[in-house]
Amino acid sequence: MGGPSVVCPGCGASYGLDSPWRCLRCGSPLRIEYEARDVARPRGQGLWRYRGLLAYTPERRVVLGEGGTPLVGRVFRGVKLLLKLEYLNPTGSFKDRGVAFEASRAKSFGYRVLVEDSSGNTGLSVAAYAAAGGMGARIYVPRDAPEGKKNLIRLLGARLIEAGSRAEASRLAVESLGRGDYYVAHLWSPWFIEGVSTLVYEAAEQLGWKSPDAVVVPVGSGSLLLGVVQGFERLAEAGLLRGEVPRIVAVQAGSVAPLYEAVTGRRASLDDGGFADGIRVPSPPRLGELVEVVRKGGGVVLVGRADIVSALRRLVSWGFLVEPTSAAALAGLARALEEGLVCRGERVLLPLTGSGLKMHDKLYSLVGSGMERRGGYLYGSPGKD
Amino acid sequence: MGGPSVVCPGCGASYGLDSPWRCLRCGSPLRIEYEARDVARPRGQGLWRYRGLLAYTPERRVVLGEGGTPLVGRVFRGVKLLLKLEYLNPTGSFKDRGVAFEASRAKSFGYRVLVEDSSGNTGLSVAAYAAAGGMGARIYVPRDAPEGKKNLIRLLGARLIEAGSRAEASRLAVESLGRGDYYVAHLWSPWFIEGVSTLVYEAAEQLGWKSPDAVVVPVGSGSLLLGVVQGFERLAEAGLLRGEVPRIVAVQAGSVAPLYEAVTGRRASLDDGGFADGIRVPSPPRLGELVEVVRKGGGVVLVGRADIVSALRRLVSWGFLVEPTSAAALAGLARALEEGLVCRGERVLLPLTGSGLKMHDKLYSLVGSGMERRGGYLYGSPGKD
Repeated sequence: MGGPSVVCPGCGASYGLDSPWRCLRCGSPLRIEYEARDVARPRGQGLWRYRGLLAYTPERRVVLGEGGTPLVGRVFRGVKLLLKLEYLNPTGSFKDRGVAFEASRAKSFGYRVLVEDSSGNTGLSVAAYAAAGGMGARIYVPRDAPEGKKNLIRLLGARLIEAGSRAEASRLAVESLGRGDYYVAHLWSPWFIEGVSTLVYEAAEQLGWKSPDAVVVPVGSGSLLLGVVQGFERLAEAGLLRGEVPRIVAVQAGSVAPLYEAVTGRRASLDDGGFADGIRVPSPPRLGELVEVVRKGGGVVLVGRADIVSALRRLVSWGFLVEPTSAAALAGLARALEEGLVCRGERVLLPLTGSGLKMHDKLYSLVGSGMERRGGYLYGSPGKD
Repeated sequence: MGGPSVVCPGCGASYGLDSPWRCLRCGSPLRIEYEARDVARPRGQGLWRYRGLLAYTPERRVVLGEGGTPLVGRVFRGVKLLLKLEYLNPTGSFKDRGVAFEASRAKSFGYRVLVEDSSGNTGLSVAAYAAAGGMGARIYVPRDAPEGKKNLIRLLGARLIEAGSRAEASRLAVESLGRGDYYVAHLWSPWFIEGVSTLVYEAAEQLGWKSPDAVVVPVGSGSLLLGVVQGFERLAEAGLLRGEVPRIVAVQAGSVAPLYEAVTGRRASLDDGGFADGIRVPSPPRLGELVEVVRKGGGVVLVGRADIVSALRRLVSWGFLVEPTSAAALAGLARALEEGLVCRGERVLLPLTGSGLKMHDKLYSLVGSGMERRGGYLYGSPGKD
């Protein structure tokens, strides 16, 4: 049985398991290729329950309780929503899946420090997994990243470096790399995507291996979308999926929506009110792949501030304490229904990506006041009797 | 097969499934009794995976993704810690298990509003489950409850009423009860304990049904401790447990420690620095039962501010973002080791009860500054380069 290899789709270069964060020859993002492995029955907890479906299992695994998130049903405008509660991962976002894989690799290869640039959630996750694995962490964030996340990153003992912008954070991170440093590079790394793909294996098992009709996914760097697609394709190849690989609907927000612009040819010029900071990635390295996936089947929608606030209100009214960026997915579903990309009666998998607990103060000021809802009981304004 | 009945250990009164929150005749906390049921193989997700072990399953279930929390191993002073990550429940605490059961009962019996008094976590949980079940919620909290939790309760559309003290919150809640109101009463309710007991079924399954040597549990109202004991006893009765029912070590903190005082005869007079607000319950209604459990096997330890901060630092250094009250458990284990209640080499189940994400700001100011740790990499102070 051949092991996996890591190849560059750009120039054809190939690498071993200890692959760099991007192609050393041409700078493209890399891709993992591997022969079919023994598809064992799921066994154990979390990510590594699906090791039979992963390219490989790092020798030393850094574990914080990632994966195994609940799948909960709700009905929304006639659609059967299958909500995958990714915000109940250890640091409150789906990023823990990718980072758990990366940290395990770094630990197995003997790296000492995890380095990452991030708008918030990934940085927090990397800081936590570095701590869990007894490694150091250096996290570069834009100055305007949410305070709560910055505090938690510092709390975990990571060095937090604030940059003028998201792009500067990236540049500083890359320039800083030295001996013993492992650059997580979640925008680039195929291993991060490998970790994210476990979301699909779990959801499929929770659904009795029956595929949903569609998946609605918020897209920033696109690692979530690519992980989801990869997961379903592998399940299908392995003969484990009952039904077709589902349609993929990508959701972007506001005015930073390169996938939306590339696919539709239209200009993205909505205001996102700052509620989509988690998916604001101007130049995702894997844009080409994303365009390909969306063109193959599914579509891409754009949402703005009002859409996100309305979706967030709905999620909170159901009891789900998510962060605003997570609500972009439900906002996107509403839009996809209007555009006929999803139909009433369909079963739609929708990952809720990030926890609202990290920003309880901001959340309340956004959607909290004057909520009067739910039949049978009259609500006063909060705080009043 | 006889259904469960709810009895009063105080005066012998007995009630049906729609039991009141305490005995209507003598005011004692009630107890659930039931004949052995069909102990089916676990099936499905979350709490109801163990329906074969529960007294009954409410007809309508209010689901937010409760239960199914990870069990993660660490080594602490030679003890094999089995950390049950209860803070990854939907609203960030183990309370979701009890509240999910209560909300499901309330919904099944047709109640319209959930009422609760709480120092924070339970109130948040009740607000979320009321939302999930399409019910209203009235939550009474002491004015000094953490701001983050109060904001989240309001955000979920509950009416939040602030009282001068925890006791006044209780009194106001009880006085407010009217037609259609369901009083959750987590300090009293045997159904809350029933929900909490699922923690044990899960942990046991995760451990291959092999019992740990001991369980270390923070005690406020004692619902967690009683749920843990009940869970292990039922597993043993059902013949599912490989090994003995484990020793129980109760942890109390500061100067509000009635169980510690009742069992040891000593006065609790430590300063908890406000870090144990989640377990500060001066007169737990089930104190008698708690004393009985601790006397039967195990013990009770008292921890103070420095113990909790030190344990919290340790947990965070492992990557676990818990709230200070959660750290009381690990602080208690350290104390239990010193007192010989737990020995090196033993396997100890330790639930981590509440999430630190709800109080990121306070957490950082508590333990965040100047963390310099982990060999091989020199840390600067946070924020400095």
